[in-house]
Amino acid sequence: MKKPDITKILEAVADGTLSVKEATKQLGQNQAQNIGFADVDLGRTQRTGYPETIFGSGKSANQIVGIINVLKEQEPCVLCTRIGKSKAAKIVKAIPAVHYFEEAKCLVVGQMPKPITRGSIAIVTAGTSDIPVAEEAAVTAEVFGNRVERVFDVGVAGIQRLFAKLDVIRQANVIILAAGMDGALASVVGGLVSQSVIALPTSIGYGSNFHGVSALLTMLNSCAEGVSVVNIDNGFGAAYCASVINRNN
Amino acid sequence: MKKPDITKILEAVADGTLSVKEATKQLGQNQAQNIGFADVDLGRTQRTGYPETIFGSGKSANQIVGIINVLKEQEPCVLCTRIGKSKAAKIVKAIPAVHYFEEAKCLVVGQMPKPITRGSIAIVTAGTSDIPVAEEAAVTAEVFGNRVERVFDVGVAGIQRLFAKLDVIRQANVIILAAGMDGALASVVGGLVSQSVIALPTSIGYGSNFHGVSALLTMLNSCAEGVSVVNIDNGFGAAYCASVINRNN
Amino acid sequence: MKKPDITKILEAVADGTLSVKEATKQLGQNQAQNIGFADVDLGRTQRTGYPETIFGSGKSANQIVGIINVLKEQEPCVLCTRIGKSKAAKIVKAIPAVHYFEEAKCLVVGQMPKPITRGSIAIVTAGTSDIPVAEEAAVTAEVFGNRVERVFDVGVAGIQRLFAKLDVIRQANVIILAAGMDGALASVVGGLVSQSVIALPTSIGYGSNFHGVSALLTMLNSCAEGVSVVNIDNGFGAAYCASVINRNN
Amino acid sequence: MKKPDITKILEAVADGTLSVKEATKQLGQNQAQNIGFADVDLGRTQRTGYPETIFGSGKSANQIVGIINVLKEQEPCVLCTRIGKSKAAKIVKAIPAVHYFEEAKCLVVGQMPKPITRGSIAIVTAGTSDIPVAEEAAVTAEVFGNRVERVFDVGVAGIQRLFAKLDVIRQANVIILAAGMDGALASVVGGLVSQSVIALPTSIGYGSNFHGVSALLTMLNSCAEGVSVVNIDNGFGAAYCASVINRNN
Amino acid sequence: MKKPDITKILEAVADGTLSVKEATKQLGQNQAQNIGFADVDLGRTQRTGYPETIFGSGKSANQIVGIINVLKEQEPCVLCTRIGKSKAAKIVKAIPAVHYFEEAKCLVVGQMPKPITRGSIAIVTAGTSDIPVAEEAAVTAEVFGNRVERVFDVGVAGIQRLFAKLDVIRQANVIILAAGMDGALASVVGGLVSQSVIALPTSIGYGSNFHGVSALLTMLNSCAEGVSVVNIDNGFGAAYCASVINRNN
Amino acid sequence: MKKPDITKILEAVADGTLSVKEATKQLGQNQAQNIGFADVDLGRTQRTGYPETIFGSGKSANQIVGIINVLKEQEPCVLCTRIGKSKAAKIVKAIPAVHYFEEAKCLVVGQMPKPITRGSIAIVTAGTSDIPVAEEAAVTAEVFGNRVERVFDVGVAGIQRLFAKLDVIRQANVIILAAGMDGALASVVGGLVSQSVIALPTSIGYGSNFHGVSALLTMLNSCAEGVSVVNIDNGFGAAYCASVINRNN
Amino acid sequence: MKKPDITKILEAVADGTLSVKEATKQLGQNQAQNIGFADVDLGRTQRTGYPETIFGSGKSANQIVGIINVLKEQEPCVLCTRIGKSKAAKIVKAIPAVHYFEEAKCLVVGQMPKPITRGSIAIVTAGTSDIPVAEEAAVTAEVFGNRVERVFDVGVAGIQRLFAKLDVIRQANVIILAAGMDGALASVVGGLVSQSVIALPTSIGYGSNFHGVSALLTMLNSCAEGVSVVNIDNGFGAAYCASVINRNN
Amino acid sequence: MKKPDITKILEAVADGTLSVKEATKQLGQNQAQNIGFADVDLGRTQRTGYPETIFGSGKSANQIVGIINVLKEQEPCVLCTRIGKSKAAKIVKAIPAVHYFEEAKCLVVGQMPKPITRGSIAIVTAGTSDIPVAEEAAVTAEVFGNRVERVFDVGVAGIQRLFAKLDVIRQANVIILAAGMDGALASVVGGLVSQSVIALPTSIGYGSNFHGVSALLTMLNSCAEGVSVVNIDNGFGAAYCASVINRNN
Repeated sequence: MKKPDITKILEAVADGTLSVKEATKQLGQNQAQNIGFADVDLGRTQRTGYPETIFGSGKSANQIVGIINVLKEQEPCVLCTRIGKSKAAKIVKAIPAVHYFEEAKCLVVGQMPKPITRGSIAIVTAGTSDIPVAEEAAVTAEVFGNRVERVFDVGVAGIQRLFAKLDVIRQANVIILAAGMDGALASVVGGLVSQSVIALPTSIGYGSNFHGVSALLTMLNSCAEGVSVVNIDNGFGAAYCASVINRNN
Repeated sequence: MKKPDITKILEAVADGTLSVKEATKQLGQNQAQNIGFADVDLGRTQRTGYPETIFGSGKSANQIVGIINVLKEQEPCVLCTRIGKSKAAKIVKAIPAVHYFEEAKCLVVGQMPKPITRGSIAIVTAGTSDIPVAEEAAVTAEVFGNRVERVFDVGVAGIQRLFAKLDVIRQANVIILAAGMDGALASVVGGLVSQSVIALPTSIGYGSNFHGVSALLTMLNSCAEGVSVVNIDNGFGAAYCASVINRNN
Repeated sequence: MKKPDITKILEAVADGTLSVKEATKQLGQNQAQNIGFADVDLGRTQRTGYPETIFGSGKSANQIVGIINVLKEQEPCVLCTRIGKSKAAKIVKAIPAVHYFEEAKCLVVGQMPKPITRGSIAIVTAGTSDIPVAEEAAVTAEVFGNRVERVFDVGVAGIQRLFAKLDVIRQANVIILAAGMDGALASVVGGLVSQSVIALPTSIGYGSNFHGVSALLTMLNSCAEGVSVVNIDNGFGAAYCASVINRNN
Repeated sequence: MKKPDITKILEAVADGTLSVKEATKQLGQNQAQNIGFADVDLGRTQRTGYPETIFGSGKSANQIVGIINVLKEQEPCVLCTRIGKSKAAKIVKAIPAVHYFEEAKCLVVGQMPKPITRGSIAIVTAGTSDIPVAEEAAVTAEVFGNRVERVFDVGVAGIQRLFAKLDVIRQANVIILAAGMDGALASVVGGLVSQSVIALPTSIGYGSNFHGVSALLTMLNSCAEGVSVVNIDNGFGAAYCASVINRNN
Repeated sequence: MKKPDITKILEAVADGTLSVKEATKQLGQNQAQNIGFADVDLGRTQRTGYPETIFGSGKSANQIVGIINVLKEQEPCVLCTRIGKSKAAKIVKAIPAVHYFEEAKCLVVGQMPKPITRGSIAIVTAGTSDIPVAEEAAVTAEVFGNRVERVFDVGVAGIQRLFAKLDVIRQANVIILAAGMDGALASVVGGLVSQSVIALPTSIGYGSNFHGVSALLTMLNSCAEGVSVVNIDNGFGAAYCASVINRNN
Repeated sequence: MKKPDITKILEAVADGTLSVKEATKQLGQNQAQNIGFADVDLGRTQRTGYPETIFGSGKSANQIVGIINVLKEQEPCVLCTRIGKSKAAKIVKAIPAVHYFEEAKCLVVGQMPKPITRGSIAIVTAGTSDIPVAEEAAVTAEVFGNRVERVFDVGVAGIQRLFAKLDVIRQANVIILAAGMDGALASVVGGLVSQSVIALPTSIGYGSNFHGVSALLTMLNSCAEGVSVVNIDNGFGAAYCASVINRNN
Repeated sequence: MKKPDITKILEAVADGTLSVKEATKQLGQNQAQNIGFADVDLGRTQRTGYPETIFGSGKSANQIVGIINVLKEQEPCVLCTRIGKSKAAKIVKAIPAVHYFEEAKCLVVGQMPKPITRGSIAIVTAGTSDIPVAEEAAVTAEVFGNRVERVFDVGVAGIQRLFAKLDVIRQANVIILAAGMDGALASVVGGLVSQSVIALPTSIGYGSNFHGVSALLTMLNSCAEGVSVVNIDNGFGAAYCASVINRNN
Repeated sequence: MKKPDITKILEAVADGTLSVKEATKQLGQNQAQNIGFADVDLGRTQRTGYPETIFGSGKSANQIVGIINVLKEQEPCVLCTRIGKSKAAKIVKAIPAVHYFEEAKCLVVGQMPKPITRGSIAIVTAGTSDIPVAEEAAVTAEVFGNRVERVFDVGVAGIQRLFAKLDVIRQANVIILAAGMDGALASVVGGLVSQSVIALPTSIGYGSNFHGVSALLTMLNSCAEGVSVVNIDNGFGAAYCASVINRNN
């Protein structure tokens, strides 16, 4: 992406090639393309290092196709999350070169990038039921160029399974811990590693789990330090945070 | 609407043209028409400046038709909100001169009024998914005679999109801000404008969004002043508040 | 206050009187003065129409004095809210021409302005215990140049008291309704007036009042339209919203 | 119902007609009939004045038929609440002399009793959408022999509708107030009448109504005295409380 | 108390002895006396059968004395609730013929009435710690002319204590059940009696009692019918409801 | 199950039959078998006395079949909970010797064990609607070798039903109390027995029951001692706790 | 304690030595002694195996002394919990042979019993700040005749501390786990032991710990089985449950 | 710190220099020192890269001194958080070479380390009242060897203050954002930077802020990606997470 930034606009004003009124407008508009129902952010990569991702929930297939068409002009690889199976089918028909990851409910437009990071991100789950959320994280991390290590079903009720995987986990650069129910995995792993830990509460559980609140609170109150937390079931967000850390290492 | 008010009733008692018993009754009843399942409020325009609106949720198509038939005797334009597609189809068959706004889930009976206000109401959304709630607000505002300016998808994650639209927003008389998730749009815009801001939390989001509670709390706690808040997803209520302000300017 | 705005800065760049680097800096800094523990916002009046107000809670007397000293250079009248009695005493000693409103817990530096609005703001309370919150609203509104009408203790348990004051309430331009407990005053008054109503929940009550939550929820769910809501006990915020509406009428 | 009470059992022990072991058992068992999945309470009328009512939710049609068959041996009229349309159809086939009240979701087995109370119960709703809950209350009250007065759709947003019906309401012996959203009806009526008021919060509303919590809290915090509250949407419970009061007058 | 009601005012308008303007005013004002910080409701007895009670919490001793002085002109006995020990001392000095009930935190001005009801109100507590709340209820009930029967510390953990008192409880006309912690007393007693039961949750308990919420929820969800609920620790409200029922028997 | 424990691994290291590297790995891995989506815990029986149970919710039929195939190599009887009817049908086709308990939503692979405990577990419900949760507990307890006594529908609204069954309840070694709504059964039984009581809140109820929260809070706040609590609707967990107690008696 | 039970009363009726009226009374009263503000339960030991314990919170020193004087007539050792230092001092003056445990806030009247159980109860804490709650549990368990093993400060952030103590923990008969913050200790230990585990959440923590709610929810949602939970900070309750289990082994 | 790790212990077993029994014990104990009320974790640096920090809240001055004395044997610099002024005074007397940071409520034993990281951590606050929490973060980060950049009082209500500091913020390696009230700072900054952002909600605010919950929810629901969250007011935790990221860059 190659858009003029604030300084360039001001320089153009200074050398008279740009009027004051036009500059005022450009200061805002040069980083977005308005298509009516959406004002697609084209400056995201410049500002944050990653392009805008399409959050599919609550958008129609047509709206998503419209936004994809804007983004893929600029980005080699566009990620859409929270895309159910039937909605994905409609989008796949309308857009060439799309791959749909069913378990992750993710849809990737264009070429999946090869891993570009030296270090990897370990994505660890407490149980089998946490895998869909973990897969959203894994696909996101891969789209952002990370190497990913999956370690599934090592919850603390059978803590020897965790210890057997500790070496693998410790080789990663950043660790994502996905757990529902008691969310205790974050506290245990947090005390055993020296890397950054992103805790990812899932809504797996029942009764007083309250759709992920019990795991969320456990993780926010982790007695082990070095644990920061993202929203319930927000696999994308966890992977985004992990990618930023991994990219800068 | 031209109904006698309290003073007129008392004057009629004073000059003997109305009995005491009848006056007692009229003090209550003259502003409503009872049709069994509903006691339609016909004094609303006199008291508050706008006629009664039909909240469609939880009422059958038949009940809604019955209430419309009472209201349209007095009002040139009757608004029904929260009308799903199939319920709307039934009402459209039974009542002539109805228009259904599908995205807004609103149904308007009679002639849509021309804008009568000098100033306009800006309806701003943080994302594409907030548009249905924003459209409920927009249709309501238009039924009440306001000029409406729509500014969609300018959430603070890509804040340059907001700045590009600040001029448009500042030209309005009142601003409605619809946002889910973090609801942060209210705090940012509130600090940049001198008009009234009505914050409209939406239930867009997931996990610890808790169906709009996170946006609601953000807006109630806005560090920018001049922001007042309506109920989650209550586009109608936001437009009503904005209309009252706009009318009196 | 007479600070150059964005356009003026750009014009200065255009005519060569301002370097690009300096302009970039000014675009941010010209509207604030940094005093270490605070970055006092001097552009508030220009942007929003009212100067920055000092929220006293959680700041030391010394910090407040420091901020006042910056603001009073520019503003004829500075308002501080949430100032307890003993903290007020310390500030009064350090700053000349201060007046302390004990019931409102407000402190005003400089000359209290004369009313400059045509219309007035009615501040109505359900009970006697809501008066301190209402007084914070009243002092704020007066500092912002509004005429204020106080109507206290007319809660709906003795609804004839409210009807006796309806004429007074209806003569105002904007209405603030302060109520704790059931907060029902907002719903009743909302259905009887045609002006803007700002509902101000107070934390008065006990048991399942939950420190104002019951009143807050009642007001957000008001069946009467035209009611928007501010934070619990936020008299300042209610008055701010009301002032913006009243100013523009 | 004519079952021996504790004293009679003890007398039988005293005069030797009942063994100690048998008495111990009877002290518990003589007031219930066990049918495996249910232990039907046959002593309810003796202890509380009204027979056991069948709460239909969560029970299969077969289970309900089984319990009806036990109860109708003793009671001329058996009430089942929370019976959906299709479940009702199955029961109606299996049991003779059943009447189904669709709006109230109530099913009555046997002869509906004639009103036996002198005074009446007024069942008042704030809106049209509260009617199903109110009808559960009305059918229950009628099954328990009360005269019932229905007053629907008189919410405080159009308060003149309420005043027009105050005379009717005041003629009742007990008043049930069904309201969702802000629940403010309870506070207003509570301050205007001298009878017992049973407040019945309904789950009507949206957003921060939280499925009836806002109305429930309003009613628990009513500034008008003499208001006691039952569970959300619990029309049956409200009618039960009202019946007890009405019976004893 | 002998104040003209609405009908009388209208009759006066009809026979010319009252002007229309004056009547409008009187319709509201004749039932209140405004003393600035309070608008004392003098029509309460006429409308609801009992005079206004002063809720002491959040009012200064001076304000309370001011309101007492208005009320005692009309009422032989004035009740103030929620009066702490030191505030009571100030009021006792200023007003003659006051009695202070320390455990109940109630203050009674004038002659305590003799019981005038035929039936009695039983006030039952689960534990010793619920007694202060129960005493607020007891004093209130006595001020309203009821005979009161106290039955303390019969919680269901030692259920034989309750059975030993069942006869006493059953002789009352209305039953108030005060309980904190699990609040289970309401469900058990509710299933054993045929009178009205007012459940009064108290904030006694710790941990997940959440200041009375656990008892409140238990009582709202009582599986025994005929139980209605008042606010947490609201002894006054429970007694008010019970008095209304007892008065009409 | 006969797996080497930590000590054995260390001894093997000590006598040179196991390399250090291999030991490190075995310390973790010898008690689990990884099948990709699951890391089946094979050391559960050794550590806790009971084998791993499959929590069916959120797992596909295929995944469950895969895990069963690992576990049944080691365990004569494998329990799966939370298996809906259609998922059960798929598993039954794939695995021989399976029995499905429809009401309990449990699926048992292999031979159901004969009772091996001396004492029994009493599973008591307040109502008929609590039976499915109770049956999950009953099947679990039976799989773990316990004798089970079912006592259903003895809630405290008809407390004589409970007393009639007290002898049966008291003969058990451990008591599970399943109740929704007010959950008061735990407090009453807790005060009448000397055995361990496991309170099992169910989500039965409506309105402010909040899907089992009211029963959960009641039980956590039980005024009767000796009551510990498991998660809402967690019949499996209650039976597990009871089995551990019963096994050791 | 040697009080006649229900059967004996009935036998006395049967052989004529007890009148029916007297028997009815005795069925209730023989197990309590009423001292006005308290109805002391003297049948607790007979019914539940342990005598009544005095919950000191919310009772005056005088009331506690009064109840002690009743209980110590029957019991060699009386336990009072939740007794602050200054209240303890008053009781110690009034009653001979009292010992006060300051950290546990417990007061024991009479001779502390020698351990009478074969097995022991392990009381384990996650941190140093959980010790006061753990000590309430320890003193309670000792008063009830248990041998107690204290294992403090072995939270999962330094999980090797826990493994170092696993042998000690596994030698106990029952395990109490006291933890605040994330409460993760329960899930980890629960998966490593075969005994009964009583989880005891403490209110230690800050922020979104919400006074123990985060630990409570973690423990209720423990992915390790065999964990049942008591109220927040309820050391007494945890010890009571553990004692019942330990007694019966 | 130079403690043998698991592999070294196993090697010692392998070459016969360590008995199996002793190894089992060492695997747990070699990384902790038990002083009765605390089991000080001495392996923290080895496992996680930073030594144990003493959380002062809920511990006595004596306990803290005891733990310091253990830790300072191994660590050149020991950090204690949440130490109030008077408690600090006692510790300062008992331990040489202590420095107390009053605003941060932190106490540092030994030599404060010089910055050892290349990059810096920016600690940004929305307001002046957030500074104490930010200072806890700053002192922690400095103890862990980071360079720290403080940017205070740049909340979004005066968003130009934030833009003026964007360059400074963007030069840091990691960004901590401390904000109470609406917490909107996280969403705005998150969309403008490419570094890791740790959101730190503070309990600053009033009314429906609910002691930091509104800010916490805003941050968890941030529409800007790359934001992870720590507990309310947990400055230490935020700095810990930031340090781990900064160390590895």
